[in-house]
Amino acid sequence: MSLTITTLDWVPDFPRGYVKDLRARWACREAGLDYEIATVPADPKSDAHLKIQPFHQVPILQDDGLTLFESGAIVLHLAGKSPALMPEGEEERAHVTQWIFAALSSIEPPIAAWVFTTFGDAKDESTEKLHGWMHERLGQLDAVLAGRDYLVAGRFTAADLMVADVVRLIADDGELESYPALTAYVDRMTARPAFREAYDEQIAHWEKADELRADQD
Amino acid sequence: MSLTITTLDWVPDFPRGYVKDLRARWACREAGLDYEIATVPADPKSDAHLKIQPFHQVPILQDDGLTLFESGAIVLHLAGKSPALMPEGEEERAHVTQWIFAALSSIEPPIAAWVFTTFGDAKDESTEKLHGWMHERLGQLDAVLAGRDYLVAGRFTAADLMVADVVRLIADDGELESYPALTAYVDRMTARPAFREAYDEQIAHWEKADELRADQD
Repeated sequence: MSLTITTLDWVPDFPRGYVKDLRARWACREAGLDYEIATVPADPKSDAHLKIQPFHQVPILQDDGLTLFESGAIVLHLAGKSPALMPEGEEERAHVTQWIFAALSSIEPPIAAWVFTTFGDAKDESTEKLHGWMHERLGQLDAVLAGRDYLVAGRFTAADLMVADVVRLIADDGELESYPALTAYVDRMTARPAFREAYDEQIAHWEKADELRADQD
Repeated sequence: MSLTITTLDWVPDFPRGYVKDLRARWACREAGLDYEIATVPADPKSDAHLKIQPFHQVPILQDDGLTLFESGAIVLHLAGKSPALMPEGEEERAHVTQWIFAALSSIEPPIAAWVFTTFGDAKDESTEKLHGWMHERLGQLDAVLAGRDYLVAGRFTAADLMVADVVRLIADDGELESYPALTAYVDRMTARPAFREAYDEQIAHWEKADELRADQD
């Protein structure tokens, strides 16, 4: 088995630590799976990239002959390789899948839309609506996590990886302040050694890209 | 095997035909799976509902002892029961999963955010940004579908069900006019007998709810 995670060759400062290859790196590290990193050009993006990823996004996973995009599909695929990410019981497996979908389909959309519309801009009526939608979800998620360390099976799974990664995007903006259970959960998940290693590795990737750029100037 | 799809007991006119229980009904009908419909109260929503669906959403699927939420997880679960929704090859199965995630995580979020912020409101700078984001995705999806009838395996799968259902929300608003391949694709998918039956059944569900309300007044 040979795993390759494809990410961008460079990004500016603000998305560093949040580019979604981190989800794949984190999953591999929790599961003890070796992987290599490949890159596609960020600016301009390439037709070769579009050919394997129709939305010009990253990450892309290659697993021997299989090429897969969408971080949710990638993490679910990696989870299928390791009990560290996926419990054994049929019901628990279905619930891990459910929470990966919940992260990406119910929790991330309001967060991503709010971040996207507010970035660099003054607030308007639409950002206020998105802010309300986002906080409705965060409050509901906080209630789920009250008195509970993990989402499924009483232990860390790929469900926690995805939910925590989706929510941490706004942790630094103070948007989690009203949610003690959610704040503690994100802190706990991002303190895991596999997360820290994946995060540091992604940061080092961009720093190396800076050096390569400097050499070319 | 006994399947129950839970939806709301009533909704106003505008979401009729778009409540996401349709995805589960459509999947069951493509697969020839029998199901029953149960309801939870729409207004006010109940604590009993929140107990099985932490975001107060529908649909919820019950499959014997298993309770599952998130339409993506539900459709993927149902797809596992039938070759009508899921091809047999390992690579094709992974690609169906990939496209279900793409529908819900890359295509639906800008559509949902744009619809959410524009509904009933004047346009502002944020809705324009969301509109641009949505059209970037629609254009990319149109390119994928050019010269291709289905997303995976050259035949209908759960991937088409989810992508078509996500996009049809804005078909009536004229937002697909610039995308001939995508328009033809949505028309083709929503002309399928299983879609029509699921759609008509959902509309009939709300009409019956209207009658029950009228009786109670």
